[in-house]
Amino acid sequence: LSGDARPVGPLDEDAARAAAERLDRLTKPPGSLGRLEALAIQLAGIRGALVTDIRRPAIAVFAADHGVTAQGVSPYPSAVTRQMVANFLAGGAAVSVLARAAGADLVVVDVGIAGEPIMAPASNEDAPSVRFEAARIADGTRDLSAEPAMTVLQAGAAIAAGRRVAGDLVDRGADLVALGEMGIGNTTAASALVAALTGRPAADVTGRGTGLDAAGVQRKAALIDEALRRHRPASSDPMGTLARVGGLEIAALVGAIQETASRRVPILLDGFITGAAALVAARLDPSLPPHLIAAHRSTEPGHRIALDTLGLDPVLDLDLRLGEGSGAALAIPLVRAAARILGEMATFDEAAVSNRD
Amino acid sequence: LSGDARPVGPLDEDAARAAAERLDRLTKPPGSLGRLEALAIQLAGIRGALVTDIRRPAIAVFAADHGVTAQGVSPYPSAVTRQMVANFLAGGAAVSVLARAAGADLVVVDVGIAGEPIMAPASNEDAPSVRFEAARIADGTRDLSAEPAMTVLQAGAAIAAGRRVAGDLVDRGADLVALGEMGIGNTTAASALVAALTGRPAADVTGRGTGLDAAGVQRKAALIDEALRRHRPASSDPMGTLARVGGLEIAALVGAIQETASRRVPILLDGFITGAAALVAARLDPSLPPHLIAAHRSTEPGHRIALDTLGLDPVLDLDLRLGEGSGAALAIPLVRAAARILGEMATFDEAAVSNRD
Repeated sequence: LSGDARPVGPLDEDAARAAAERLDRLTKPPGSLGRLEALAIQLAGIRGALVTDIRRPAIAVFAADHGVTAQGVSPYPSAVTRQMVANFLAGGAAVSVLARAAGADLVVVDVGIAGEPIMAPASNEDAPSVRFEAARIADGTRDLSAEPAMTVLQAGAAIAAGRRVAGDLVDRGADLVALGEMGIGNTTAASALVAALTGRPAADVTGRGTGLDAAGVQRKAALIDEALRRHRPASSDPMGTLARVGGLEIAALVGAIQETASRRVPILLDGFITGAAALVAARLDPSLPPHLIAAHRSTEPGHRIALDTLGLDPVLDLDLRLGEGSGAALAIPLVRAAARILGEMATFDEAAVSNRD
Repeated sequence: LSGDARPVGPLDEDAARAAAERLDRLTKPPGSLGRLEALAIQLAGIRGALVTDIRRPAIAVFAADHGVTAQGVSPYPSAVTRQMVANFLAGGAAVSVLARAAGADLVVVDVGIAGEPIMAPASNEDAPSVRFEAARIADGTRDLSAEPAMTVLQAGAAIAAGRRVAGDLVDRGADLVALGEMGIGNTTAASALVAALTGRPAADVTGRGTGLDAAGVQRKAALIDEALRRHRPASSDPMGTLARVGGLEIAALVGAIQETASRRVPILLDGFITGAAALVAARLDPSLPPHLIAAHRSTEPGHRIALDTLGLDPVLDLDLRLGEGSGAALAIPLVRAAARILGEMATFDEAAVSNRD
């Protein structure tokens, strides 16, 4: 229950070097595909082999509710978490559309949506690649402004649920796992986590979330500062911090990151919430960050700080601030393109193209 | 032969407004899909109707040679232009791979490759979506460091060839035209064009191209400054400037941009060379830039200046510097995603999701 996983360890340097050497023999000036080449090298390092395509990308979206919504930290009611999960499964949400566009499987996991347990809907014949999974740990979190959001036991159980879901995706053949979330109120939890783990004041890492005005952002930051004074989480205690100010879906993301990395499958992080989860996971295992791909940089100020702390340079910068895994889904074609470049481009010799002097 | 086209005119504001209004009813916080929403609005404005998918993207790659390569401005020999065209058609080049990955048709057009005319290869049954087209205007350009690269007649003929190719793509059903090029030496021509049209010194707009070292870049910039002193192109005379220091493939790109815009089909520009062509086209028709989508920002310093002058904010920033249309191909899935968001997401009403207070 400590959240500790066996360290995933470094990237496979031999595979990464083999990818770099092949890239330099392909019919293009060396390095001219920029970030795409870096991605192809990283994929090889993660997998321990040349990665020449992404055939079965999967998106896991973890959903849960947050007691802190009672404090008015979001312009949307908690009920939207549940409603949006139904929308994910019906195919009408952004992540539904973008998963289809990317040819990705989508699994939506209830790890603690408030209210009655969601019944697994009958499978939708129009959308065979979308699944629902129930893995409820609690009826939402407690209000982190008044008490610990979770017990350490609950946080550990949510991590285990995330591990199970990710392991199952890999067992079903996923060769890229993109991560997203849904939880009204979860930017408050993510800001609190990033503030606690980096030592930054809440004002630096707190943003508009789904659309607060400036006064709302100030109130949210004050609430977070006050909660951190109350809970006094130690930055050296990522599990205690996660339990006190995190969320069930954030804990599940930590577990999904740990399991996917340990299976040596590349991980595509979405936005601020998954970035905060990655920060927790990296504190539990400092060898983790090279195994992560940041899909995009959102407009949430805490996201930039989380990415900088993790040393991750995002693939996209499109002013997104939706979450759900939408940004991760958008980056899938770019990761796939990086792999296919390595797999399908001809070398100078093969194409009989004159190389530089 | 003046290169003047009837002005394409402004975007359709009614269609753009309808797209923006629909985006605000979809199940997401208003504006939370950032750049993707701006793209969906722009597509509607270009088309004059809501664009809900990109079903048939096409990539046109114009290829030609440059007399200025005699001055050692590229580390690769001119013969590589022809060899790479063969590589495009055989499916082994970056743009070949990325066109397949994006599900795009690819047409490769000889507008002036040096040497014997390329025979249209027998159609490749493995790659029915790849075509070659011969539209030779000249046996490469003259050395712009010594004499005008083209006559105004040649430049006009190349523009007409580009118009014909783009019109044909639209007639075949293309609903997005991505543009690329191949021409050893063409960053020298593009830098000269951008310097002449913006009044910037060559040093500001000259980069490594396919891989010059610092001394090579200095020599290239000095050559461009000297050529501009010799030719004295007037920034008010885009056709004369294009003829004196441009290239046949750049002129063809100008025509392709003009024709595609006049057909109200969205245009995806690739990197520095297509950006320089867009700058020429925008000087001929100042109403053009809102009809353009810049796929990415390359590492060539002149590209940033061209994009800034055009007022274009690129979709991707991946340190690419390959050309061919590779960056434009990479952006196709993002433009398609923007369209599908508008076409496939549910509204708050449809999905019975509670909207904000």
